[in-house]
Amino acid sequence: MELDVSQRWAKREGLALLTDFYQLTMMGGYWKTGRNDLTACFNYTFRELPPHNGFAIAAGLEQLLDLVEGLRFTDQDLAYLESLKTFDPAFLDYLRDFRITCSIEAIPEGTVVFPHEPLVQVEGPLIEAQLLETAVLNTLNYQTLIATKTARIRLACGDDNLAEFGLRRAHGPDGGLSGSRAAYIGGADSTSNMLAGKIFGIPVRGTQAHSWIMSFPSELEAFRAYAACYEDPILLVDTYDTLTSGLPNALQVFKELRESGRAVRPAIRLDSGDLARLSKAAYRMFSEAGFDNLLIVASNELDEDLIADLKRQGAPINSWGVGTHLITASDHPALGGVYKLVAVREGDGDWEPRIKLSSNPAKMTDPGRKRVVRYYDDKGRPLADIIRLADEPPDVIDPGQTAKPIPFTERQDLSFLRAVWDAARCEDLLQPVMRDGVRVGPSPSLEEIRARARAQVDALPEELRRLRNPEIYLVGLSPRLAAEKIRLVRQAPGFLGPAPISANGEKP
Amino acid sequence: MELDVSQRWAKREGLALLTDFYQLTMMGGYWKTGRNDLTACFNYTFRELPPHNGFAIAAGLEQLLDLVEGLRFTDQDLAYLESLKTFDPAFLDYLRDFRITCSIEAIPEGTVVFPHEPLVQVEGPLIEAQLLETAVLNTLNYQTLIATKTARIRLACGDDNLAEFGLRRAHGPDGGLSGSRAAYIGGADSTSNMLAGKIFGIPVRGTQAHSWIMSFPSELEAFRAYAACYEDPILLVDTYDTLTSGLPNALQVFKELRESGRAVRPAIRLDSGDLARLSKAAYRMFSEAGFDNLLIVASNELDEDLIADLKRQGAPINSWGVGTHLITASDHPALGGVYKLVAVREGDGDWEPRIKLSSNPAKMTDPGRKRVVRYYDDKGRPLADIIRLADEPPDVIDPGQTAKPIPFTERQDLSFLRAVWDAARCEDLLQPVMRDGVRVGPSPSLEEIRARARAQVDALPEELRRLRNPEIYLVGLSPRLAAEKIRLVRQAPGFLGPAPISANGEKP
Repeated sequence: MELDVSQRWAKREGLALLTDFYQLTMMGGYWKTGRNDLTACFNYTFRELPPHNGFAIAAGLEQLLDLVEGLRFTDQDLAYLESLKTFDPAFLDYLRDFRITCSIEAIPEGTVVFPHEPLVQVEGPLIEAQLLETAVLNTLNYQTLIATKTARIRLACGDDNLAEFGLRRAHGPDGGLSGSRAAYIGGADSTSNMLAGKIFGIPVRGTQAHSWIMSFPSELEAFRAYAACYEDPILLVDTYDTLTSGLPNALQVFKELRESGRAVRPAIRLDSGDLARLSKAAYRMFSEAGFDNLLIVASNELDEDLIADLKRQGAPINSWGVGTHLITASDHPALGGVYKLVAVREGDGDWEPRIKLSSNPAKMTDPGRKRVVRYYDDKGRPLADIIRLADEPPDVIDPGQTAKPIPFTERQDLSFLRAVWDAARCEDLLQPVMRDGVRVGPSPSLEEIRARARAQVDALPEELRRLRNPEIYLVGLSPRLAAEKIRLVRQAPGFLGPAPISANGEKP
Repeated sequence: MELDVSQRWAKREGLALLTDFYQLTMMGGYWKTGRNDLTACFNYTFRELPPHNGFAIAAGLEQLLDLVEGLRFTDQDLAYLESLKTFDPAFLDYLRDFRITCSIEAIPEGTVVFPHEPLVQVEGPLIEAQLLETAVLNTLNYQTLIATKTARIRLACGDDNLAEFGLRRAHGPDGGLSGSRAAYIGGADSTSNMLAGKIFGIPVRGTQAHSWIMSFPSELEAFRAYAACYEDPILLVDTYDTLTSGLPNALQVFKELRESGRAVRPAIRLDSGDLARLSKAAYRMFSEAGFDNLLIVASNELDEDLIADLKRQGAPINSWGVGTHLITASDHPALGGVYKLVAVREGDGDWEPRIKLSSNPAKMTDPGRKRVVRYYDDKGRPLADIIRLADEPPDVIDPGQTAKPIPFTERQDLSFLRAVWDAARCEDLLQPVMRDGVRVGPSPSLEEIRARARAQVDALPEELRRLRNPEIYLVGLSPRLAAEKIRLVRQAPGFLGPAPISANGEKP
């Protein structure tokens, strides 16, 4: 079967114009000024974790690679660009056969990552790498945000079932589709979103809506009819009154099923009211009738804090349906990822590092092509990450020169020395994923990515997995990279300004 | 030219499965239990305005109608559904030729709307109207949210230029695409999003990125090169140091252009630092060089509060680039819209109203098919909205029976009586937009929708347009609808429970 429109969209076909206007005017400018023979290296990084998070989970790479590999300007794209009367016709001709020939390294999806680490490193013609900025940001910012939020909700749920119900509150159809994928990576067990089920193979689950109940003359008839249609009915008990109507009617139906010989696990969904009180009442009511295995699905504006609080109260809920707050990461709905030029190369010359300054040190970029090295103890627990220049060996540390911590806190540089010294092994996190615009190998399956995320989160020290005030993981710049950064800052235009005092101690 | 994939996706082709799993299991259940001859009426409403908002702007209807009109299950959809081994093969056969034959009334896009008002009313076979729930919510919740947020940012901007720069922080490609459309409706003047430009014809604008500057040997060369390429360059001045490098270099280039005889309005963009101080310094520096018309574009995590505060400080910024906080409505990233069954009809019988109870009065639904009537004074200013039953005349008010206010505050019912009494005219807000699954006429253009939103916001009393503590607009239920609601609540199962005291004063 050929792909249909939704499948082709999911493969990112026809999305060359998923970019900002200025990328195209800059491309036109590079082309016009002959700068299209310049090779560039860009890094995608984010500056801050969402509040209260000790770590993030990388996600979205697969859709980015789909977009890059298939990127073509369609006739409709070119006709539109022409209509803007901004671009040189010869430049538009150039776009007709435009292909991305960049090489890309990336930290695999499902990896635990931290601020300031390049998650993706793009190398190739400046004019191509520039175009990709918006697509990289749009794709990775959102999925990484949602995978991270879901991992946090998963921590609150423990081993309970976690169902993602976000489609109705997602930001458009693709907010739902990409969001469901990221949620699955982050630890959701299923989605309600059929499109995500079809396209990504995510398990789909659901219960029933109030309209099902309301369309029948009575709640009891509605429950009976549903139980007759489906093998494992989950009955929604809050359409009228949970305690005096929904629960007694649901119990009645599960008793009837038991009497008829159908071995069905009784299951209800609570979607409003005091979930602690109602879940305890439901459990008691079913227990007294001899059902000791009631499945209670809870929903209604849940997030990790509410789930943790309900569990603290001993609510016998064993399945959590989370929608709005998961799919929008409502307490922090954007990951502030950026895509910055870190080095350029003229023709066959050497790479020259580049830096962007800022009065805010956290917004200064780290210059140069890089590698990210993670150091592990002998139990496989990560100890520290050091961002190094690409040509530095990963496993050498000079005890005389320790890494510079990020953020620049009062923490001792010696922590890094100790971490690296103690390490049983180290690992290069950035892996080649695309060479000259073509994938270097098959992508991991979504199940593999999800398993990776789970294993990575499990391996973290407990202090990083707290829901409040997690420990800050050690991330630093290697001594060489730190020195290079300081050198570039000092010589950047305007940074020091004219010297206030000359060598002989007088104002110049 | 045929439509390409992105255009077909934007027309919502291939999105029959943009729905929750439970919609399909319920449809299967309706079909199996013979309830597919039941006609239903559903209302889409939202319960609360985003914080600090006095009103909302309806948006997203066009994409919903596209989806409804074109909804077909593709072979790929059916193959997927079959693979789930949940659905009766005969039901899947039925889906093969499935079309939506519902009729839809809606409040036009760009209209100012309030909580509890049905923005969309869907009538048709229960089995069809049920499927649409998720698509209605996904489409209207997000666009209404973003149009509303943008209208608020527009209020802070006054008549300044407002550019939407959100694509990189949007929730996936479609978060950007639908979001740009909604932002334009809400009052943005342009978008940076090329896909939104191509598909919706929204004006596209942009400046330049730090990478442009950093790719040149010096900032001055970068500025000169850009000015040579494009007619109206806007120079980004914060790559190194704004005051000592960016601004002097930009001024130099605009002086050179002036000397060369090119009549260019000098324009800069500030993307970091203290925007109040830097914009004043920039204005002064350019003024002293004889440029009194400097265009200053500001960006960097702006929202309506920051813009209002910068204007209060007299910052001479005349163009605002707003991204993250607009496109994610970051302080309240989900509109809690719901789609609820309000009436059913068996065969050719009468409509029977339906209600969903809740211990939270705001979450109880309003029963029955409805109309929404807005009352205006003789200057065209809206006075109050009354939600009425569909068969009530819009313009009659019985002075003996006044509307019930929503929310149920201490406000006097008499306010409604007065508003309706004073009204110079009234208007039915819900308009037929689709009959038996086909649009009743051409849709308004995006420009018309945007103009409508602007006119509607301008006509609101000033007290509703405040950024903090706006007046609460009068929305109420007609006396008949209120009485109907109370009747249904009283007879709903479990609501009153067994009478605690019998007629003779004793416990029964």
